Amino acid sequence: MAEEVKLLKSWSSRFGLRVVWALKLKGVEYDSIDEDLSNKNPLLLQSNPVHKKVPVLLHNGKSISESMVILEYVDETWKQKYPLLPEDPYERARARFWAKFGDDKVLPSMKSLFGKQGKEQEEAIGEVGENLKFLEEELKGKKFFGGEKIGLLDLALGWVANLVPVLEEVIGVKVIDKQKFPLLSAWMQEFTEIPIIKESLPPYDKLLTKFRVMLEPYVAAAQPA
Amino acid sequence: MAEEVKLLKSWSSRFGLRVVWALKLKGVEYDSIDEDLSNKNPLLLQSNPVHKKVPVLLHNGKSISESMVILEYVDETWKQKYPLLPEDPYERARARFWAKFGDDKVLPSMKSLFGKQGKEQEEAIGEVGENLKFLEEELKGKKFFGGEKIGLLDLALGWVANLVPVLEEVIGVKVIDKQKFPLLSAWMQEFTEIPIIKESLPPYDKLLTKFRVMLEPYVAAAQPA
Repeated sequence: MAEEVKLLKSWSSRFGLRVVWALKLKGVEYDSIDEDLSNKNPLLLQSNPVHKKVPVLLHNGKSISESMVILEYVDETWKQKYPLLPEDPYERARARFWAKFGDDKVLPSMKSLFGKQGKEQEEAIGEVGENLKFLEEELKGKKFFGGEKIGLLDLALGWVANLVPVLEEVIGVKVIDKQKFPLLSAWMQEFTEIPIIKESLPPYDKLLTKFRVMLEPYVAAAQPA
Repeated sequence: MAEEVKLLKSWSSRFGLRVVWALKLKGVEYDSIDEDLSNKNPLLLQSNPVHKKVPVLLHNGKSISESMVILEYVDETWKQKYPLLPEDPYERARARFWAKFGDDKVLPSMKSLFGKQGKEQEEAIGEVGENLKFLEEELKGKKFFGGEKIGLLDLALGWVANLVPVLEEVIGVKVIDKQKFPLLSAWMQEFTEIPIIKESLPPYDKLLTKFRVMLEPYVAAAQPA
């Protein structure tokens, strides 16, 4: 039976991109369905009735949600090619731990930068920096989080390489400074230059427009009435 | 070399218990160190510098944090005995998905019951019920979430069986009703009757005292000044 692999995502979904990258690294052929999140289609609602969110992977009629759960599924289903996780249980645990740290700590701290000014912004950037220090440390002696090649943790943190430059341009402040985070800065560059990653990144200008629109309510709130 | 396995936890940690159960099911000998969370010891701070939280598993000098990451590590390290996850990638993904749902949705909705009264409480219980419906559905045709035997998802949701009765007594409202959630109610009973689970549950009275103390600030806030 021919395999049926479909990915429900949106054009800019940072979590959807993780799955795109995983499938491409594995060489899995799939159909991509870009969802309009303001008008969710019945297939999405039926495939992920719990969260009603992308990404959802449909594989021979079965649906899997939550991007990190999907990555593990992809790794376990298409085992032969390009393992995303290493063999060693401790190294696997490390990758899972930092991936969770990225979602639970780094991402919310970055989001909190939106619409902050002056001293408040400085404090928020300080908090982001505290989180980034751990990632910088994790890169010591390695080119990628996965070592010589990208792995699950690189895909999980891929949004940093993809979106932080956009965030920096929109808020007008450097968040990942080359002097302060040399390894992370180098990683961002190396990661986004990998052909399979580069070819699936959403257009920079379109992301910039999206982030500017997201920032509007904060800017409006800061104006005198 | 003899294996060195240490578990840093606290007496009532719902996440620590997951690891206790996993190690016991696997028949792994370990030393348990109960942390005083108001006065964290250097071993904890050094083993989990990121979150400074229990549980932490120390295995031959390596430290692993985050209870769900630890469960996967335990399952991959001591493979021979009592698999916590099934073989099939899709079934594995399901277990991981619902475990995450338990932590991200069910647990916060339960926590939000604290200190709510009247209409507010009714609404909060409604929300908990919406989440529990999914778990009830997941138990259809099965004795445990893992099927005939308990597995990773049963351990992940074990706090429901352990703590909901305490919560119900403290707030004076039934949250998991036998009529409404017959499968979940039966699971709570079956799960806590498994000897390995039962013998490691914290004393009910001590938990009751703890929950009453946790409720005090809300009760005080509700009193006229």
